[in-house]
Amino acid sequence: MRTYRLALIGFGNVGQGLATILRDQGQMIADKHGAEYRIVAVNTGRHGSIYNPEGFDPGMLLAAYEETQRIDTVPAPNIGWDVPQVIYESNADVIVELTSSDLLSGEPAAGYIRAALRQDRHVVTTNKGPIALFYPELSAAAAERGVMLGVEGTVMGGTPLLRVGRELLTTAGISRVQGILNGTTNYILTRMADGESYKSALKEAQEKGYAEANPIADVDGYDAAVKLVILSNLLLGVPLQMSNVEREGIRDLSSKDIVRAQKVGEVWKMVGWVERTPEMVRASVKPIRLPAAHPLASVNGATNAVTFVTKLLGDVTIVGPGAGRVETGYAVLSDLLEINRRMI
Amino acid sequence: MRTYRLALIGFGNVGQGLATILRDQGQMIADKHGAEYRIVAVNTGRHGSIYNPEGFDPGMLLAAYEETQRIDTVPAPNIGWDVPQVIYESNADVIVELTSSDLLSGEPAAGYIRAALRQDRHVVTTNKGPIALFYPELSAAAAERGVMLGVEGTVMGGTPLLRVGRELLTTAGISRVQGILNGTTNYILTRMADGESYKSALKEAQEKGYAEANPIADVDGYDAAVKLVILSNLLLGVPLQMSNVEREGIRDLSSKDIVRAQKVGEVWKMVGWVERTPEMVRASVKPIRLPAAHPLASVNGATNAVTFVTKLLGDVTIVGPGAGRVETGYAVLSDLLEINRRMI
Repeated sequence: MRTYRLALIGFGNVGQGLATILRDQGQMIADKHGAEYRIVAVNTGRHGSIYNPEGFDPGMLLAAYEETQRIDTVPAPNIGWDVPQVIYESNADVIVELTSSDLLSGEPAAGYIRAALRQDRHVVTTNKGPIALFYPELSAAAAERGVMLGVEGTVMGGTPLLRVGRELLTTAGISRVQGILNGTTNYILTRMADGESYKSALKEAQEKGYAEANPIADVDGYDAAVKLVILSNLLLGVPLQMSNVEREGIRDLSSKDIVRAQKVGEVWKMVGWVERTPEMVRASVKPIRLPAAHPLASVNGATNAVTFVTKLLGDVTIVGPGAGRVETGYAVLSDLLEINRRMI
Repeated sequence: MRTYRLALIGFGNVGQGLATILRDQGQMIADKHGAEYRIVAVNTGRHGSIYNPEGFDPGMLLAAYEETQRIDTVPAPNIGWDVPQVIYESNADVIVELTSSDLLSGEPAAGYIRAALRQDRHVVTTNKGPIALFYPELSAAAAERGVMLGVEGTVMGGTPLLRVGRELLTTAGISRVQGILNGTTNYILTRMADGESYKSALKEAQEKGYAEANPIADVDGYDAAVKLVILSNLLLGVPLQMSNVEREGIRDLSSKDIVRAQKVGEVWKMVGWVERTPEMVRASVKPIRLPAAHPLASVNGATNAVTFVTKLLGDVTIVGPGAGRVETGYAVLSDLLEINRRMI
């Protein structure tokens, strides 16, 4: 049995999802993969920080956090360590970077990731900002230190989109990636098609935890655009900047527009694509009308769908959850299992 | 650069697809994976057999076969070897078993695969019969000899369905697999929805090379049922027999049935599923009516689609080509690349 010690930087949806999986499936994972994942540190901005080199019981972390909204109500030999201290002084093998995403600077996550890699720690992150902005630099740094940088959860949550593209379809020759990349806007458009107004659909999305209190990143297309940048970097091998992505949000879409489309058997979907031609790479995300029989037209609610356009296989599409607590926790787990595979 | 010598048993659609890929993409594959795949033997039932320990130019094989419908018009030091001779006496590292599928006995393929594994050859097959009938025995034999048995092409052609299920989703807890597993029947039902009769749709499917001259395996559901048996074995870990699959074909479906469904916004699809419960495993394939907004309703033509129902991720669906010359050749290539990955 190999043991991996994890430091969680952040304990929001994803961190709690991972802890839930380790609580409920830890034994199955150990039996199946011969790997034990032990949370030794949890570091949050405003909810406390704890470190125990022996590890915590994930069920206890979840119970304490649910009851007290703090993590430092769990008994621990070390309380109040900041992130640099965890990175430099803890015994963690893997830094699981789950801070909230800043799409403009990528900070503070990018700094944490750089420091962790320099300390020869594996890093797993679900943070889009640093990966969209600095992937070539960060992946080179990881390769240089012989550690892994896991990024599966940055696009489409736990649905193994990036792994399918990079490991299973790369030799088929991917020329274009397109799809529904943002669950919040897809949920809003789905509810508007059911007759809701934009405002009440947005409110619903916020109540269900899909949309942030400040929904700009979703409804104005920044979140989808940043995912296109990541897809371009990782699957097409072309560096792309946010500013190169043509971007249009869904805010100007009215119920009238929705009804007008429905009358001719069409639906509005927020579709993003990135395409490599011999000369250049182009990318766009905006709401478009699709015929009801289009494969993306039936992708509803918070579900995401991505089509790889390939030379040898034609179109291959993967549809699955784009968000969710346990679902995104699974993305982190799949990177942790990959670290184990490479270490064997 | 590692070199793998391949013996192709069969040179129909899949063999020619693989040769096409090696002709056109061989250099790219070598650059990307550090592996060279060299066809040293091609063995066919009625179109000749050739062996050259140094390997053949894949373009020359394709050109000769297209021109003469024989393979032994290619200059070769050894002509007329039978399959046992290739397995026992050639220098092939990998036996690529592509004979036509016998769903009842699995022969002669099963015998070839057993012999090849005993000779410590890797085996890649796209042959459903032996895998549905003997997978536990054959995979144990491969493991015992330290060689690989690649079966990606047995279900859904080159779409990497089995690999996604076995490598990327197994830890998510797959409880059910369902979808459109047969391209021929889906093509026929799609054309019938366009207004064609069953007979003329079947004729079209035969002209396009989807359906065999004898279409029973497709239209009566045997092909889909055997794929469910393979999915049960490989993804649910439950051995299942063909006789355990509830099976109903599409022959009794009339144009009237199609129109009647369309009038209420529904479509007929041939849907197969296999499900594991704590007590048992159940499987079924038959034509059913789906609402037009159902994700499988927009899967048209020869395209296949499979949904994994999982504990941690909910539903994850993969849609892609279920057949095709180059597409299924890609399935063989993906197994060959996997052999290379494991050898590194």
